[in-house]
Amino acid sequence: MINVGVIGSTGYAGQQLVWFLHRHPQVKISFLSSHNHTGNPFSNTYPNYRNFMQNICIDIHEAEQQLSTIDVLFIALPHGKSFELAKKALALNVKVIDLGADFRLKDAALYKDWYDLDHGCPQLLPEAVYGLPELHRDKIKKANLIANPGCYPTASILALAPLLKEQLVIEESIVVDAKSGVSGAGRTANIATLYTECSESIKAYGVASHRHTPEIEQELSLLNGSSFCISFTPHLVPMNRGILATCYGSLRKKITKEALHDYYQAFYQNEYFVRVIDTIPETRNVKGSNLCDIGLCIDERTGRVIVISAIDNLIKGAAGQAVHNMNLMFELEEIAGLDVLPMIP
Amino acid sequence: MINVGVIGSTGYAGQQLVWFLHRHPQVKISFLSSHNHTGNPFSNTYPNYRNFMQNICIDIHEAEQQLSTIDVLFIALPHGKSFELAKKALALNVKVIDLGADFRLKDAALYKDWYDLDHGCPQLLPEAVYGLPELHRDKIKKANLIANPGCYPTASILALAPLLKEQLVIEESIVVDAKSGVSGAGRTANIATLYTECSESIKAYGVASHRHTPEIEQELSLLNGSSFCISFTPHLVPMNRGILATCYGSLRKKITKEALHDYYQAFYQNEYFVRVIDTIPETRNVKGSNLCDIGLCIDERTGRVIVISAIDNLIKGAAGQAVHNMNLMFELEEIAGLDVLPMIP
Amino acid sequence: MINVGVIGSTGYAGQQLVWFLHRHPQVKISFLSSHNHTGNPFSNTYPNYRNFMQNICIDIHEAEQQLSTIDVLFIALPHGKSFELAKKALALNVKVIDLGADFRLKDAALYKDWYDLDHGCPQLLPEAVYGLPELHRDKIKKANLIANPGCYPTASILALAPLLKEQLVIEESIVVDAKSGVSGAGRTANIATLYTECSESIKAYGVASHRHTPEIEQELSLLNGSSFCISFTPHLVPMNRGILATCYGSLRKKITKEALHDYYQAFYQNEYFVRVIDTIPETRNVKGSNLCDIGLCIDERTGRVIVISAIDNLIKGAAGQAVHNMNLMFELEEIAGLDVLPMIP
Amino acid sequence: MINVGVIGSTGYAGQQLVWFLHRHPQVKISFLSSHNHTGNPFSNTYPNYRNFMQNICIDIHEAEQQLSTIDVLFIALPHGKSFELAKKALALNVKVIDLGADFRLKDAALYKDWYDLDHGCPQLLPEAVYGLPELHRDKIKKANLIANPGCYPTASILALAPLLKEQLVIEESIVVDAKSGVSGAGRTANIATLYTECSESIKAYGVASHRHTPEIEQELSLLNGSSFCISFTPHLVPMNRGILATCYGSLRKKITKEALHDYYQAFYQNEYFVRVIDTIPETRNVKGSNLCDIGLCIDERTGRVIVISAIDNLIKGAAGQAVHNMNLMFELEEIAGLDVLPMIP
Repeated sequence: MINVGVIGSTGYAGQQLVWFLHRHPQVKISFLSSHNHTGNPFSNTYPNYRNFMQNICIDIHEAEQQLSTIDVLFIALPHGKSFELAKKALALNVKVIDLGADFRLKDAALYKDWYDLDHGCPQLLPEAVYGLPELHRDKIKKANLIANPGCYPTASILALAPLLKEQLVIEESIVVDAKSGVSGAGRTANIATLYTECSESIKAYGVASHRHTPEIEQELSLLNGSSFCISFTPHLVPMNRGILATCYGSLRKKITKEALHDYYQAFYQNEYFVRVIDTIPETRNVKGSNLCDIGLCIDERTGRVIVISAIDNLIKGAAGQAVHNMNLMFELEEIAGLDVLPMIP
Repeated sequence: MINVGVIGSTGYAGQQLVWFLHRHPQVKISFLSSHNHTGNPFSNTYPNYRNFMQNICIDIHEAEQQLSTIDVLFIALPHGKSFELAKKALALNVKVIDLGADFRLKDAALYKDWYDLDHGCPQLLPEAVYGLPELHRDKIKKANLIANPGCYPTASILALAPLLKEQLVIEESIVVDAKSGVSGAGRTANIATLYTECSESIKAYGVASHRHTPEIEQELSLLNGSSFCISFTPHLVPMNRGILATCYGSLRKKITKEALHDYYQAFYQNEYFVRVIDTIPETRNVKGSNLCDIGLCIDERTGRVIVISAIDNLIKGAAGQAVHNMNLMFELEEIAGLDVLPMIP
Repeated sequence: MINVGVIGSTGYAGQQLVWFLHRHPQVKISFLSSHNHTGNPFSNTYPNYRNFMQNICIDIHEAEQQLSTIDVLFIALPHGKSFELAKKALALNVKVIDLGADFRLKDAALYKDWYDLDHGCPQLLPEAVYGLPELHRDKIKKANLIANPGCYPTASILALAPLLKEQLVIEESIVVDAKSGVSGAGRTANIATLYTECSESIKAYGVASHRHTPEIEQELSLLNGSSFCISFTPHLVPMNRGILATCYGSLRKKITKEALHDYYQAFYQNEYFVRVIDTIPETRNVKGSNLCDIGLCIDERTGRVIVISAIDNLIKGAAGQAVHNMNLMFELEEIAGLDVLPMIP
Repeated sequence: MINVGVIGSTGYAGQQLVWFLHRHPQVKISFLSSHNHTGNPFSNTYPNYRNFMQNICIDIHEAEQQLSTIDVLFIALPHGKSFELAKKALALNVKVIDLGADFRLKDAALYKDWYDLDHGCPQLLPEAVYGLPELHRDKIKKANLIANPGCYPTASILALAPLLKEQLVIEESIVVDAKSGVSGAGRTANIATLYTECSESIKAYGVASHRHTPEIEQELSLLNGSSFCISFTPHLVPMNRGILATCYGSLRKKITKEALHDYYQAFYQNEYFVRVIDTIPETRNVKGSNLCDIGLCIDERTGRVIVISAIDNLIKGAAGQAVHNMNLMFELEEIAGLDVLPMIP
């Protein structure tokens, strides 16, 4: 059994992680920490677990003292909060999977630019692995520190990776117009995410300034072999879960839809969690699962390719991917604990 | 392995049933039938199953010809459509679990009254068992024909059963005010259940005339030992899943909340799927699971007890309960295939 | 022109009030106060008013200093906050319409019981008029202090008033099962009313303890001529607006549906804002308007009458009714400013 | 008074039109036609109008016979159905405002390409005026036949018009990623638009093939003085109303956000219904009104401008704009009947 601890277990991503860890056949949850719910049963905050989860939430200090009892630490905290914890865990040979943003950007200066914060342990960046299994499986297997990708980047990179790997599109032409459910905003008392403020409305936010932008650029540039900028616009949609990324790029040369589809199929042929489909993705078709659906269109009139991807933001965009990474790091079956089909409606 | 066939697999209840059968470790799906989607892959209608379910939907005649290859037939059709199928299956020693209404009422005349249709095989009614495991477990184990309870009756009966077993309330005082998500209306093209007709609104329907009423009365009267009528009012709520039943009854004599809670706990102490809780149920806490949450309040000012139950209408109210019944009939572990926690948000 | 001031203008009820006052042909808004948004343009908080409302929110102290410039003060504050303001305004001969709870209960001891707070000016209670125009029109016309009814009481009392006026039902048999949209919870940062906590779920709350209960009982008892208790259960529904009240009562003697309908029609025949309908109400049919729809069913099997009412909680349940009261107090046309049809979908 | 007739009055756009016509001070509704509800009171289909609208729906033949009694005919039918009606009405000197697509494209061959249908009266195309008042006010005033713009084109053209008028962006770089509420799909029994199929999900549809594309291109090319293609992708969002259009274009040369904002302000300075705002639009801020909010961002990293517009698809995108056109054609005050503020929440 793998002994695990979760920091930030009562946020939505943390809780979703607990959901998968609870059902994982090779995992034992050693502790759950929660800043806001210390001392209370986890199932008070999330009554869906009533009868099935007895853990009492501990605070972060107690969690630190229990680090030596676990094999892997999951950190689901806002950015800037993982530095010290990761250092301490790694020093004790505890593997770390950080669901936050602190180790995603390879360049500490870039982190400072986008997060307006000095990076707290740049010395760890070289060993941190960007935990997108479809792109970095081998490195993940050997990693001790995983930067679990952001939700938008997961959807965006999976949609665009094949195009950039083969330089099929003009890099500067790329536009990612992404739409997310409200759970992406977290479980924090906030007027902007009240039911009455979100339902019956859609809006863009963080236009030309969202912090997931450099993460997408970093990974796509790495694949493409050249550095470039994209336009990324997130939107808030009145639904609990799901991200749909509509990605546009101008094709370098003509390609048929069939050829493109075959290429995507081949690119992802060994990937259990990626489905290249011949229809247009809907987030409902992946809701509740670790799957990513990718659909392809070619707009012959404009010479653009439009790639649309759909994920469950809390699962493939956070907790499910984190468990996938753990499975790789501990040489478990990749889908262990993650074999859940999407549930409709 | 248990070989199963599903008639009506592309309705919402049928599809949810497929979801659980697919993950059930001791089940092999032999065939899926669908009137509207005959000849098409099941995963075309429900793309959430893409890559994971290869079945092509067959029509009902083909299904009949394959009856001899299966151990149990699930029927998820509108009322009035199960008579012939059930007869044929039982004649071939195939067990039948009918998710529809045709075998729920013991009295064929009552069926005629409420469904405005002559019962097609009253001779089968004596052997049909009302498939609510918490009340009829032993009979279910020996049954060949299960009448799987309606969604509203499941929530209502589980809420009220302990009260009636001990005649704690005045029977005629009972009011069940129930609220359901839209999936209860099925996957049929219908203006009344369009997004634009249901969202941002709530309404009652079938007031004093809903067909689930006699089913609730039958089971409660059986427990109580006397015959009586209740008031039952269903409502349509803008959500996909879930039923909340708010049940009112006038107490015969005073009882403390603690005593009542203890009694309910004892009544359901061996029931994995029923949680007697000390807070007020919300449907989200059971969504995606076969659980039923029950909360209790005593209104001392009026001498009423208010029992509130929450279920997922497609699972505990239909497909999950059907699988539970199958598990009992085939002496499998009761929770086989059903060990899924509710997913929030 | 009537000069008006609004205290608590940036809550949902306050804002809805501004919406109607802005379009009212005989009203001039003198000031808007807001605790949380003092010093900011009202249209920053509510950008729907951009270009159409130039007011800067002031604080309550400044508002007090401007009392002498207005004819009527609307107070939309939480309970316990209106005592001093009302006293000051009345002393200056400014009429007061309080959308909060402070002057609704005639009995200061009852207020203390339910609100756990000593009443701050019981001496004003005798002159306060419960502002339900359909019941108290004449008193409202002469009043200086209006206690604007709560949202649930408005729906419940209008549904039940005709029954109690003629003692058609056994008083103790009354059960009101009410369902409200989330705006009823106000515009406050609160985890429980986040989109992700409310959508796809329904729950009861305040069971047998909600503070609107004594208000309903007071008004119904007044009509009926005897004192009694009812059971009242509010529920939270995933929609922005609307209250549906499903009201049950045991009939004293048989009455046909037609006779009952005729009686209700006659009872409300001069009421512009009440529609006695021959179908079952849905909240969408009154959304955005000051209307109340009332539908009637008789359950012959149980001898109960079921009366269902639907209102827009922010309008007939708060702001619209407040404006209606103002119109009466100032001898304006009753529907002035309120002539807005419900908008579907 | 202007006497008006409405063909297709029980669709969502038709009904919204009735809503505004009913409140319009200078309009008398002569007849409402409805294919599906002929012979029934309009308020049976839309109970929000109960007591306030007595019209019985007539069929189209009866409507044709009443053409001589009206001044203007509104047609809200699917494409391909307006040709004959328009001809007949115009022949009787009745002005025509067609909310459908039949007269929007100036080029009958283009109509054939996109709608797969021969144009039924190309001879009327030269006199048809594209009814976007902000661009074609003068022509609208003199027109007898108005092609009321599509919902997506209204949002897209208003967002992009100033950019193209001054050739600020490279035309071929334009991408319009648009999101619509479900009412855009109409009030037709259809599985794809059931509550249970749309809620908790977002999807794209009609990618690179939606029929509103050539309409957007026609109007933008006209402004720009050159012909070009854009990429247009519509999405379906779980909300009743609203369109958000996120429009991307590569700037020809640098411009500051302030300068761009000033230019947009100047461009729309006399437009009552267009608000150029300094924040990011949300559809809720225009819901229930004829307003269009436009927000501007410049992405300096990529050299793109991102213009976001928000409208209520049934109002500014259909019925409200139709009434605006009528006001212009009959020399009424432009905002007559349309002076309704957005309602939140």
